[in-house]
Amino acid sequence: MDELINFLRIPSISALPEHAADVRRAAEFVRGWLAGAGLEHACLIEGDGNPLFYADWMGAPGKPTLLLYGHYDVQPPDPLEEWITPPFEPTIRNGNLYARGAADDKGQLFILMEAVARTLRNRGRLPVNVKFLIEGEEESGGEHLEHYVPEHAEELKADAAVICDTAMFAPDLPTLTTGLRGIVYGEIRVQGARQDLHSGDYGGAAPNAIEAAARIFCTLKDRSGHIHIRGLYDRVQRPSAAELDAWRRLPFDAEHFRRTEVGSPELTGEPDIPLLERLWARPTLELHGIRGGFTGEGSKTVIPAQAVAKISLRLVPDQRPEEVVTQLHAAIAEAAPQGVTARFELMSASPACVVNPEHPLIRKAAEAMQKVFGRETVYIRCGGSIPVVGLFAQALGIPSVLAGFGLPDDNIHAPNEKISVSNYTRGIEAMMEYFARAGS
Amino acid sequence: MDELINFLRIPSISALPEHAADVRRAAEFVRGWLAGAGLEHACLIEGDGNPLFYADWMGAPGKPTLLLYGHYDVQPPDPLEEWITPPFEPTIRNGNLYARGAADDKGQLFILMEAVARTLRNRGRLPVNVKFLIEGEEESGGEHLEHYVPEHAEELKADAAVICDTAMFAPDLPTLTTGLRGIVYGEIRVQGARQDLHSGDYGGAAPNAIEAAARIFCTLKDRSGHIHIRGLYDRVQRPSAAELDAWRRLPFDAEHFRRTEVGSPELTGEPDIPLLERLWARPTLELHGIRGGFTGEGSKTVIPAQAVAKISLRLVPDQRPEEVVTQLHAAIAEAAPQGVTARFELMSASPACVVNPEHPLIRKAAEAMQKVFGRETVYIRCGGSIPVVGLFAQALGIPSVLAGFGLPDDNIHAPNEKISVSNYTRGIEAMMEYFARAGS
Repeated sequence: MDELINFLRIPSISALPEHAADVRRAAEFVRGWLAGAGLEHACLIEGDGNPLFYADWMGAPGKPTLLLYGHYDVQPPDPLEEWITPPFEPTIRNGNLYARGAADDKGQLFILMEAVARTLRNRGRLPVNVKFLIEGEEESGGEHLEHYVPEHAEELKADAAVICDTAMFAPDLPTLTTGLRGIVYGEIRVQGARQDLHSGDYGGAAPNAIEAAARIFCTLKDRSGHIHIRGLYDRVQRPSAAELDAWRRLPFDAEHFRRTEVGSPELTGEPDIPLLERLWARPTLELHGIRGGFTGEGSKTVIPAQAVAKISLRLVPDQRPEEVVTQLHAAIAEAAPQGVTARFELMSASPACVVNPEHPLIRKAAEAMQKVFGRETVYIRCGGSIPVVGLFAQALGIPSVLAGFGLPDDNIHAPNEKISVSNYTRGIEAMMEYFARAGS
Repeated sequence: MDELINFLRIPSISALPEHAADVRRAAEFVRGWLAGAGLEHACLIEGDGNPLFYADWMGAPGKPTLLLYGHYDVQPPDPLEEWITPPFEPTIRNGNLYARGAADDKGQLFILMEAVARTLRNRGRLPVNVKFLIEGEEESGGEHLEHYVPEHAEELKADAAVICDTAMFAPDLPTLTTGLRGIVYGEIRVQGARQDLHSGDYGGAAPNAIEAAARIFCTLKDRSGHIHIRGLYDRVQRPSAAELDAWRRLPFDAEHFRRTEVGSPELTGEPDIPLLERLWARPTLELHGIRGGFTGEGSKTVIPAQAVAKISLRLVPDQRPEEVVTQLHAAIAEAAPQGVTARFELMSASPACVVNPEHPLIRKAAEAMQKVFGRETVYIRCGGSIPVVGLFAQALGIPSVLAGFGLPDDNIHAPNEKISVSNYTRGIEAMMEYFARAGS
């Protein structure tokens, strides 16, 4: 654990340029550590931004090859004042290790690193071949990995990827994630008058760009959470009856979820769709913020001429991002009120992703986790997007084993991020067990 | 004009604390200048913020007393890069004097100062009594004046106020403003989840505060500009048939207004109400901006927990601000979507204001302006709010002569503010003529 704590001390915040040296220090840490553990070809691969790390151990010919993925960069720690102990001074309290990156993803990446290192230490060899591919731009949207993987598909050839960057459904409940939503993220850009105008002199005649952005959004999505973008639901596949049935059996209490995780007076979303299906298998549309006008202290009576609404759609199988973007363009043009022009500017898009739980390398992971945790592994989906899963599927043609050892209340991307110490140690055991089973 | 240029050189930006010394310098300038011109009791009146200036000349017993109002503070000059010549280096181009404050209000205040000074210089006396009351917090919402006037009503006793802080309806068209809209300004504060949540993990279940703010606003006002706040229109008085008829005769071309002033593809607002009535005599509701969520560069997939929407309603006779605030509270509570709490926080309110054009001191102003400009003076209203007009009406029981010599394209509160040099000089003549007529 000391080594993990040293790793967590490095403020490798990829979104903040002033931490560039720290990010590199974290990459060097990984390289030194895995080279020391006996991995071969350990090297940093430079790109425009933060380096990728690669290392392998290919001494098990005829055995499966696992591509072990993680990221050494972390989210910014703001707001700092809400941390009980400082984000980069890792501290153990009540069985949890608190630090930025404890769960996302340094702590979980270390589960893979430790599992490999211990196996090598114990047996002198691994039961499978492994290739580590670790990036430093996951939290900042860098494109190094996205370009590198398809261009080096041959070197990265493997039978499955293993990613520890998700959460268990509940404490002590071993969990594999078998589906992720896709995403279309972009900006609705609205132009009304030529320049900002005074609401006294022009209120009643001039278009208001912020109002228009609000109106467009409210036209695209109604109060019930239903999205009004023509064609959007055409390809939406409901999960199988078996999958829906398994979800119903999960230990999940919507009221507890509302109270402890969301903390709002009520939950929202399509009323006739069960909650987990809404979160995991329904397209959703969110308004992240509207830039423009006056939002400071005091009063300014401006009619804003410009507005930028940041929005995203979560996609589910079998929606096609390009098609959704086309539908979105049309819907925004149609929803634009009188007096403004509005266009959609795409920033990123990736499709939803599902893996087959019957794949042998997925099944063996479930069995290994069941053995260590003493309970049957559950299969869940995740409402978020992990673009690397789609990247590995597309560029390498391999499924990803999403074996997460975080917990829903780990506060990733928030103050007081943590990982359960017992999940961390059981995670290492489970991964060691998995390597053994995968190689058997 | 040299003296006005020196006055305009002082960056007396009341909204920016770093300009506090400049603001005071402008106040001292006014004091020195008017004391030098022969005004008596010239003094700065200290308050919490920037001083008021007072001076008088009461040597015309039995004649009317005019309370001459103006403000020596100016708006911030941002965006600086859009100024053709720097905002505090006054420059004459094509018959206009360009500088921050040229029209709002230093240039127009100087019209009153010059008219008094020249009359004193020419005749050794004034045909009326005058009291100057000049403030330095008009652009920053300071409350010094608001408290001072009712507390010193006896000292400020006058027959009418004269304010040069408005615009002429068109070039060469002498204009008196006889009505102003009132305003209710405040914030809709929305709370959804306990904290910001990730749209992947919670999209489909958690309320979005920015979306809720947008939805509330779009419920309060529809696409046609009609406001859906119960009771809001109950007291709204349409202007008299004579007034509406006079407005129809004004030289006004809506298409020219759209193209040159607004610059949007279309105008907006209640389609069955004539444009000038929409601007001057209809309540309007604007969304100035929404604070919260993520509005920076890049992508952040946040479901915002909090939002603050800054809004204002313009009021017309006989709407009562307190009643409107009550109606607004109810409408916001009713419009709030599932999963959030929303409340309205009032920041300021003032009623609409109309003055009777038949009042002798208004009529004489119209005649004086007609004489100097050679055209019949028109009576218009203004869609904005000039709180001091209501303050003088309420605290002193006097009407305000709103004799403005600005032009609609003077760019007040914007880059390249200007005043027409010929309007400035004719304004001085018109005010001298007015003093003569008022005292006759």
